[in-house]
Amino acid sequence: MGALKAGIKPSGGLDLALIVSDHPCTAAGTFTLNRIAAAPVQWDRTLVPSSSIRAIVVNAGNANAATGSQGLENTKKTAELAAKQIGCGSGSVLVASTGVIGHQLPMAKVEAGISRVFPTLGSTPEDLDTVSRAILTTDTVPKVVSRTIKLKDRTVELVGLAKGAAMIGPRMATMLAFLMTDANVDEFALKMILERAVDQSFNCISVEGHASTNDTVLLLANGAAGGDPLQGDDLRLFAREVETVCIELATKIPADGEGATHLITIDVEGCTNREEARSIARCIADSALVKTAIHGADPNWGRIVSAAGYAGIPFDESEVSLWLNEFHLYERGTPLEFGAVDVSNSIKLNWDTRIRITFDRGLESIRFWTCDLTAEYIRLNADYTT
Amino acid sequence: MGALKAGIKPSGGLDLALIVSDHPCTAAGTFTLNRIAAAPVQWDRTLVPSSSIRAIVVNAGNANAATGSQGLENTKKTAELAAKQIGCGSGSVLVASTGVIGHQLPMAKVEAGISRVFPTLGSTPEDLDTVSRAILTTDTVPKVVSRTIKLKDRTVELVGLAKGAAMIGPRMATMLAFLMTDANVDEFALKMILERAVDQSFNCISVEGHASTNDTVLLLANGAAGGDPLQGDDLRLFAREVETVCIELATKIPADGEGATHLITIDVEGCTNREEARSIARCIADSALVKTAIHGADPNWGRIVSAAGYAGIPFDESEVSLWLNEFHLYERGTPLEFGAVDVSNSIKLNWDTRIRITFDRGLESIRFWTCDLTAEYIRLNADYTT
Repeated sequence: MGALKAGIKPSGGLDLALIVSDHPCTAAGTFTLNRIAAAPVQWDRTLVPSSSIRAIVVNAGNANAATGSQGLENTKKTAELAAKQIGCGSGSVLVASTGVIGHQLPMAKVEAGISRVFPTLGSTPEDLDTVSRAILTTDTVPKVVSRTIKLKDRTVELVGLAKGAAMIGPRMATMLAFLMTDANVDEFALKMILERAVDQSFNCISVEGHASTNDTVLLLANGAAGGDPLQGDDLRLFAREVETVCIELATKIPADGEGATHLITIDVEGCTNREEARSIARCIADSALVKTAIHGADPNWGRIVSAAGYAGIPFDESEVSLWLNEFHLYERGTPLEFGAVDVSNSIKLNWDTRIRITFDRGLESIRFWTCDLTAEYIRLNADYTT
Repeated sequence: MGALKAGIKPSGGLDLALIVSDHPCTAAGTFTLNRIAAAPVQWDRTLVPSSSIRAIVVNAGNANAATGSQGLENTKKTAELAAKQIGCGSGSVLVASTGVIGHQLPMAKVEAGISRVFPTLGSTPEDLDTVSRAILTTDTVPKVVSRTIKLKDRTVELVGLAKGAAMIGPRMATMLAFLMTDANVDEFALKMILERAVDQSFNCISVEGHASTNDTVLLLANGAAGGDPLQGDDLRLFAREVETVCIELATKIPADGEGATHLITIDVEGCTNREEARSIARCIADSALVKTAIHGADPNWGRIVSAAGYAGIPFDESEVSLWLNEFHLYERGTPLEFGAVDVSNSIKLNWDTRIRITFDRGLESIRFWTCDLTAEYIRLNADYTT
């Protein structure tokens, strides 16, 4: 893999990355459900699941979304340019883009960039670091998680990269994330493993709840570790590790949310199903009033229960209980006495804030992560393109 | 009507208002759909529609929401205290509260306030002005709209009051609004007229999309203008005026949105039904990325179409067109050339911003109003209770 400055970002930073596998990979992906899906999302959707993927080309600085038929042509051309260098068909090259919406990709720069980056590809930690930085936009830190997984008779590696700090409100997918492994995994097993992991991770985060046009998670397995396709205990162990890597990567996104000063973990318990719990968690996570209260270390817990109240779930007030950090504030519809200064200090003095809300509807729960809303988020977003 | 400083607001401002009609009124109401409905909402819901309402008691500074059975007792007691002064049953007294959630009403102050305000009631413009100020919380201006309606053989008056600047994302109702008329209107006609008017007005606004626990719109008609209950052309004319008064009152709320520097009007056209159009409008209106772009006069229109894209409506990208103020930016899925500086200046130099987005799905449309999101909103909400 490798990356360079192709001149797509106005800042002149690293903005073009190429990830190539010498062996054909099985590959699975999950993508945005936004009706304005970016051109690279439309391209990738037709290719995965697959057992013959060789590469991913990623550019930052331009989302290639809402760009019409010209945008689709540009994505196809990008895949063809990379395929020509690698010596494979363009149907073996996945593409991902992130950045501003509604502008055409500068194809001369993309073409020159792909030619220049190809001879520099490597597999050192430095190459991974460069690629992890080239896929960022307003992120302040690269997001990489890796694992060595000991199976019965061999060891496999799993590494994941993600980016995202705003326009984060994934439904079925997230901003860009790429997971790679040398394990030998059947493409349909890979698809099921990825979908389950994404449901517990990238579909449980938000920054401001705006579902992006470019959300893409890809998992590539090239089988270089050898052996037959994983099955039984090995497959289950591998699936569990994919899930923990996805959760660890996903939580790095709100933790790096634009302007964030708190990571907020929301546990919703006692629901009839996970989607019900997710709806409630999302309403709490996306409420500007909840997010500003946490930013201000304000123990104004009424904002939390009232956000749950408009999730469209027909619960009764008398079944709701609430905890904020270690403080029990509301018990089955009745407010409890609490020390406002103590609650405020527990928010103020910790980067992590925990919200737990429980219902009497069933046994399902969800854990969801978001960040607070600050004046810095406003500043960053009031002049991003201009 | 009249109002005074009862000591409920920590600021010591006007916070208790009493509106009394000498004649029994027909009354209709629409209320929040939030599952955590405030105690006064639970009380009022059991009373309207009605043909025997005599009064509305309103307090600001305390929402009496998420307060359990004690909260309900306190609302009932408030109605009883007012009813005793007026000499009617407590079932003829509606109650509304607004302010912080999760605290019990200070009943000694409410009781003393009702006793003190009763002898001061009047019907001058000054009394209306005092009441319109006593129902406010973080609002910066009172919101009053009145009309004199010339019917076939008489003239009737219609006056409306509203409050609200945050926690505005009404579903079926809004923050507090009260409309009063001396027209003689049957209670079921009144209910239909109010529901239709609210659908076009208070259900088409948002500040940050957080549906309040206390949203209440009440319409009281005391028949003092005389004559038989309105019907035919007179009833239709009256209904139209209720609608225009509701729209005028409703738009005053985002125009006074916390920290707002722009009123944003969103027209969604070409949908199969109004609810589809409303879902799209609400996603655009509640996107922090759209709201900060307008605040920064940033012509980053991709944020607008991408917000429409996650409304859950299965439109195709190729049927979407977009205008921002007088500029046509996106035509049937293809971006158009535009002067970024011209678009930016048209946002910067005007208080009003207009967004128009069209689809090819049908003939229904909606007009929705919101405001931009600024650092001042964050400041106001990061320390509201503490």
